[in-house]
Amino acid sequence: MRPAERFASARVARLATVDASGCPHLVPIVFALDGDTLYSAVDRKPKRTTALRRLANVAVQSRVSVLADHYEEDWSRLWWVRADGAARVLALTEPESEHALRLLTSRYPQYADQPPPGPVLAVDVDRWSAWSADG
Amino acid sequence: MRPAERFASARVARLATVDASGCPHLVPIVFALDGDTLYSAVDRKPKRTTALRRLANVAVQSRVSVLADHYEEDWSRLWWVRADGAARVLALTEPESEHALRLLTSRYPQYADQPPPGPVLAVDVDRWSAWSADG
Repeated sequence: MRPAERFASARVARLATVDASGCPHLVPIVFALDGDTLYSAVDRKPKRTTALRRLANVAVQSRVSVLADHYEEDWSRLWWVRADGAARVLALTEPESEHALRLLTSRYPQYADQPPPGPVLAVDVDRWSAWSADG
Repeated sequence: MRPAERFASARVARLATVDASGCPHLVPIVFALDGDTLYSAVDRKPKRTTALRRLANVAVQSRVSVLADHYEEDWSRLWWVRADGAARVLALTEPESEHALRLLTSRYPQYADQPPPGPVLAVDVDRWSAWSADG
């Protein structure tokens, strides 16, 4: 399976950003992939500290890392895929933002009832890294 | 449930480190907690590039972020706990390293058959952050 395909099989991933003082920050995200672009939406209004944090971080350091992994007690079945790239915050009025929200809502029916109020984060993935215990 | 207790209920977490150029790096880890200290072992010899990476990173930037999260399709049951702290690489001969390996092996019987060959990473957690959808 191609790394991006395996990544897309996960329902949740984790986004690492770096703040102005060089410290890492980590949050779980739901996401949709369109080729080598990964979209996630900020689920809470950017006024909220936690949401602001990742947006403020990418404004300073656009490099981000996103990880999807699979765990089970049979360690011969472990795998992970990492997507490294540059992040962009999309304005709500951009066509790409609407496109991303359509992809996210199609993948997560949960968003149909309650669309995410925050802006979309796009990550242009320039490196896929993959590992699996079964080689 | 206290954040550390909820964190410990997860079998896998994700470790974010920052490299010398200020870019984030992300790997899944198995871990054991002892109070506010989190231990994980490098599963492969540090000669291997991927293992070296996280050790080289914490030598430059000791601040790390570790995330445990729970996903299911009922989003009212989502939760995550984040542990932010400073990392230390333990020498294999240190008593703390033996203590950490005992904790890890007791939590993961998988390690009994094949102890991790690499050094132990200790994270002294100075901030626990927790969120759950059910408040």
